[in-house]
Amino acid sequence: MRTEISTLGEFGLIERLTGGVGDDAAAIENGAGGYTLMTTDMLLEGVDFDLTYFPMRHLGYKTVTVGVSDILAMNGTAGQLTLALGVSAKLAVEDLEEFYAGARKACEELGVEIVGGDTTASVTGLAICVSVVGSVAGDRIVRRSGARVNDLVCITSNLGAAYLGLHLLEREKRALAEVENPEPKFEGYEYLLERQLRPRARKDVVDALGEAEIVPTAMIDISDGLASDLLQICKASGVGARVYLDRLPIARETYALADELHIDPVVAALNGGDDHELLFTVPLGMQEQVVQLGVGVEVIGHITAEGTGAALVTPDGAEVAIKAQGFV
Amino acid sequence: MRTEISTLGEFGLIERLTGGVGDDAAAIENGAGGYTLMTTDMLLEGVDFDLTYFPMRHLGYKTVTVGVSDILAMNGTAGQLTLALGVSAKLAVEDLEEFYAGARKACEELGVEIVGGDTTASVTGLAICVSVVGSVAGDRIVRRSGARVNDLVCITSNLGAAYLGLHLLEREKRALAEVENPEPKFEGYEYLLERQLRPRARKDVVDALGEAEIVPTAMIDISDGLASDLLQICKASGVGARVYLDRLPIARETYALADELHIDPVVAALNGGDDHELLFTVPLGMQEQVVQLGVGVEVIGHITAEGTGAALVTPDGAEVAIKAQGFV
Repeated sequence: MRTEISTLGEFGLIERLTGGVGDDAAAIENGAGGYTLMTTDMLLEGVDFDLTYFPMRHLGYKTVTVGVSDILAMNGTAGQLTLALGVSAKLAVEDLEEFYAGARKACEELGVEIVGGDTTASVTGLAICVSVVGSVAGDRIVRRSGARVNDLVCITSNLGAAYLGLHLLEREKRALAEVENPEPKFEGYEYLLERQLRPRARKDVVDALGEAEIVPTAMIDISDGLASDLLQICKASGVGARVYLDRLPIARETYALADELHIDPVVAALNGGDDHELLFTVPLGMQEQVVQLGVGVEVIGHITAEGTGAALVTPDGAEVAIKAQGFV
Repeated sequence: MRTEISTLGEFGLIERLTGGVGDDAAAIENGAGGYTLMTTDMLLEGVDFDLTYFPMRHLGYKTVTVGVSDILAMNGTAGQLTLALGVSAKLAVEDLEEFYAGARKACEELGVEIVGGDTTASVTGLAICVSVVGSVAGDRIVRRSGARVNDLVCITSNLGAAYLGLHLLEREKRALAEVENPEPKFEGYEYLLERQLRPRARKDVVDALGEAEIVPTAMIDISDGLASDLLQICKASGVGARVYLDRLPIARETYALADELHIDPVVAALNGGDDHELLFTVPLGMQEQVVQLGVGVEVIGHITAEGTGAALVTPDGAEVAIKAQGFV
């Protein structure tokens, strides 16, 4: 009996192996009314990043963002992290120092301590595993399963920029593959590169929610794209959702490059991953409060009853069902 | 400027990147007088294991042993763990189910909960990262740095068996590479295979130390071989050590296979890794107490003053300096 992993997809595989897809981080009761949070992420060369254009310093920074975002998505505070690296001989000590410098920079910004790690030889490419522990009070924890009918669907920035940044890097890589001293052309698109290469974990959003004493009803880190991550909230909460096409925030640079590359910017916004922004829901009455947090929250739709599915509503009122892209 | 990683070795690399080799696990004050412990380990196909002879179920079991042993080496209790897997298409869903079954078995035996994980596609081999959190009371934590002159050096089982088990598997792999229906010959050496493929984390030792109210002065997980790990304790504690050749516990099967393969069993005992036993030190007066714990503790030597180095003492009184093998 041999079942190909591709027939299940990433989420199907996790469900079959562990009996269910959980929240962004595991929550363990700490015996004092709160929770210890724990999460782990693996990033592999050739799949999650390409070292031909990904600077090691940015990769270290992004690794921390990927890990810490999962703690933030539980409305938690990240405390410590470990980094395990599988290192091939093609990398020099200086490359790893750059990686650590980037990781330390992100940790400083986020108030997280690097407490340990593991370094092992790799006969293939660079393998990275980041694990983060954090904490959250019992009355502030947010899971994927708490969204209720009529809640507002909110996101913390514009969408699709990281995805377009990746396309730009891939285009330049192809264009310059044969050139001796390549000079990639990124003018005007620095913002997109920044979103792909050096995304920031939105600790500022969680801090602002805390100061305003707002507890979202559900939250998730947008790592796989709005469509996929919204569907995760709908599934976990047993609800549907409607998001409005004309409410999707898309940056000017994203539109410009999408036009140049003949990519539909809405598809990029819905299915482009790597944004590491937060997608969350709050009760209907909180619209004004979340918009006034000052951290760029946009209300893009609302939660609907179970069985209504998730759909994108166009300006003329038509509904387009939201489906997740395949993975693995 | 390019410094080859091989010029530093694993420990040199970690020192340069992180400013020092720490304990087996990071210890974070929990605000209640105790510590949260955290550790991470990466295992890569082709470096740490060979899937041509390593059954997936055993690999899952061993992965948990590798992670949990680091918590035990701090005299701690492991609580939760996460597993991150980078999975290549050559593996089937059933292979991963076997891996998880083995991991769950080890976790049941050790009282540890699998709380989460990450699954990502790999374009190369299988990559595994295990991260474990645990806890230890403030008056029971043991580090590498606490060994004092005249302390006894203790280990929890015989040495070199896992290393010989690996040699046996490698020999059979070479011998049977061209055979259509290979039937490897392992009769009489099942014990060595078990030590390599399915090593047990010594929770029983930590439990017994706790019941007897003994707190070792220093402790480490023997993963890189007695020589290397004893040197880590000596370096961290600022002491030397003498271990006695005729006190090194070596199993009958280890002697037998070493003889067959023309390997020096003492070299296997000193430098063979993967044992995942505990190496610890206790004050001189505790010899009888540790031997009577009933968990197979053997006293193999004692701690000496700083500057005396670490050495193996032969039956005729000669001293052979202990040096670590190279890594990475």
